[in-house]
Amino acid sequence: MEIYNIMDEKLIVDYIKSLDIGIFQESSKLIAKEIGDGNLNYVFRIKDEDTKKSFIAKQALPYLKIAGEGWKLPLDRNRIEAEAMKEQDRACCNMVPKVYYSSKDKALFIAEDLGHMDTLRNAYMKMKTYPNFPKFIGEFLGKNLYYTSDIGLEARDKKNKSQLFNNPELCDITERLVLTDPYRESESNDINPEIIDNVKEIWKDEKVLLETAKLKNIFMTKHEALIHGDLHTGSIFIDENAIKVFDSEFAFYGPYGYDIGLLFANFILNYVSWEGIYIYSEEQVNDFREYLLKSIEEIWNSFEKTFSGLWGKSCEITTKSKGYYDCYMKSLFSETIGFCGCEIIRRVVGMAHVPDLDRISNLKDKAKAERRALNIGQKLITKREDFLVIEDLTTLIEIL
Amino acid sequence: MEIYNIMDEKLIVDYIKSLDIGIFQESSKLIAKEIGDGNLNYVFRIKDEDTKKSFIAKQALPYLKIAGEGWKLPLDRNRIEAEAMKEQDRACCNMVPKVYYSSKDKALFIAEDLGHMDTLRNAYMKMKTYPNFPKFIGEFLGKNLYYTSDIGLEARDKKNKSQLFNNPELCDITERLVLTDPYRESESNDINPEIIDNVKEIWKDEKVLLETAKLKNIFMTKHEALIHGDLHTGSIFIDENAIKVFDSEFAFYGPYGYDIGLLFANFILNYVSWEGIYIYSEEQVNDFREYLLKSIEEIWNSFEKTFSGLWGKSCEITTKSKGYYDCYMKSLFSETIGFCGCEIIRRVVGMAHVPDLDRISNLKDKAKAERRALNIGQKLITKREDFLVIEDLTTLIEIL
Repeated sequence: MEIYNIMDEKLIVDYIKSLDIGIFQESSKLIAKEIGDGNLNYVFRIKDEDTKKSFIAKQALPYLKIAGEGWKLPLDRNRIEAEAMKEQDRACCNMVPKVYYSSKDKALFIAEDLGHMDTLRNAYMKMKTYPNFPKFIGEFLGKNLYYTSDIGLEARDKKNKSQLFNNPELCDITERLVLTDPYRESESNDINPEIIDNVKEIWKDEKVLLETAKLKNIFMTKHEALIHGDLHTGSIFIDENAIKVFDSEFAFYGPYGYDIGLLFANFILNYVSWEGIYIYSEEQVNDFREYLLKSIEEIWNSFEKTFSGLWGKSCEITTKSKGYYDCYMKSLFSETIGFCGCEIIRRVVGMAHVPDLDRISNLKDKAKAERRALNIGQKLITKREDFLVIEDLTTLIEIL
Repeated sequence: MEIYNIMDEKLIVDYIKSLDIGIFQESSKLIAKEIGDGNLNYVFRIKDEDTKKSFIAKQALPYLKIAGEGWKLPLDRNRIEAEAMKEQDRACCNMVPKVYYSSKDKALFIAEDLGHMDTLRNAYMKMKTYPNFPKFIGEFLGKNLYYTSDIGLEARDKKNKSQLFNNPELCDITERLVLTDPYRESESNDINPEIIDNVKEIWKDEKVLLETAKLKNIFMTKHEALIHGDLHTGSIFIDENAIKVFDSEFAFYGPYGYDIGLLFANFILNYVSWEGIYIYSEEQVNDFREYLLKSIEEIWNSFEKTFSGLWGKSCEITTKSKGYYDCYMKSLFSETIGFCGCEIIRRVVGMAHVPDLDRISNLKDKAKAERRALNIGQKLITKREDFLVIEDLTTLIEIL
């Protein structure tokens, strides 16, 4: 057993040198630099001065940096993140950073450096398109759902695997900041004063309160598959030929629609952001928005193609029941739509916003985009059972 | 750490004497007798010859006795059973046997002896009625659902608690013998040749196959509350003033409707059994059947009264959402009805029958009762969404 100690740029090099993990020469000179922008973890880039190769070390801190030592978070989330990446890599090869080493005691893992790739969020904020992304992420989603759920795993293996991903503290963050506080007056909310009346309308909408209660209960009770738990566009590295999904410390066994819904929501948040950004021509905005909606459709289609292809290989005999696949997908889709609505609203009303919208400094301009987001989010939450095909979603975004 | 060894009537006395658990005098003479009729466990009644007080020791065997040492079962189920009883006792005082001592390593616990009480199954097979039973079991069900679910427990506590009840091997038994095999040709089935055509009709019923697929998925993924997992009438001790729910080795975090549905199913199996038993007058049969149906209604009403009373005390803020309680109960009720149908069918078609029916030695007489059971089970499974109030269930039983 090792002892936990908070690393710095010198300590992390000494520690890594003491390990025999075969990613650098014994004689190599290693230089570490802390590059983290979060305040939950230290992220070090460690460079081998001789080969110029680099890798990443991520260590969990026992408290939120910005909150001093007051707000404690479990170190165990680092183990969960490393375990989740290994699991995702088994389900879907080469779509997450390779993990070279992990230490539960040090709350630290060492993984592939993907600093040469952009995040999807940064790309979309610059209107940069990636035609292969929908195909890749659809495969990632389809394989992860299949290979970590009771559809693709033997039931006993799934139950034992899910034990590795008990993540109560990080689930609690989601349960409060995504599925509770944004739907009522709460200290944790962060609301543009220009839209306060619109937000109050949502707080009075009984159908929103009812449906978010149901969705929260689904989030808390449905152990369907290993989900990433925070699959927004900033959690995905991208280039022309690959995607790498990262930052999976919120991973747990939950409803799979949460991951897909979150991803779509972040596309939609980018879509509405152009309402308040004037540096591009109308044609450019229209083209990019069309690209975003087409991507949403392609993601769902790629996901469904992947998952339905695997479904037929399932050892779970009930998957052969006529009509079961369609029922399964209908339920998954309506949950996807519902969680998508929740993520849209919480990114406008709740504590954690998205840079796509936050870069609009003029609050009146920002409000235009935010109102459109709220309107879409509200419809998705309250009408989620009415959505039957992916085009029902993209059409709604266009007309609202 | 202790070492597991299979007990006998001498070893168990020596072992208990070595413990300091305060339920007998040091000088007492203890006599043990193995009284188990199952073949998964040893059950010893241990009597203090001086005080005449007795208690029970239950030890898990690592294999099914009837199958030799071939079919292995995890010893951990004994720990789960003891933990479940402690949890149920916290939720609902004095409705399970008191646990005096438990040893994970020995796969053994020592508990209150309730041999002076009858099981509810035995009582019903003799048409003995217990007017207080519905009230008691309704409270048991309501309090257990509340105090072990996200409604009555802080979300993080519930997640950590559910980790204690990972029970993959015993869930696997239910998944196969209750929710899979009875709906298709399978070696594990045990079918009265007189009803084989009726059973084949069920196997061809696509709606049954679809709905049982959905119910099985709910059983495998919905971590709603700590359920008993095998709450039939033989798992309940009864007298005029008390009930004691026992044999909870199948306990795990699952859909609560499974427990309620199983209990109702065993009432219905007793109800139909009189179709083939001729030792009572028609009037006696009618009266007892009326009592059973009234009991089903009273159980549900007592359960709902208990649970709804607690619901208002929940710290989970979403429970205040208008209409949420009704939605929650509607979903719970339709799952209860569905699992009730599954238990009815599996007790006729599957491996494990009920003595209520098995005591009918004439296969043609038995078939009359079994056909009625199949008919009810099939309707419950396929129409479960249409059941809105408990009288919908009791009326259906009467007319089918």
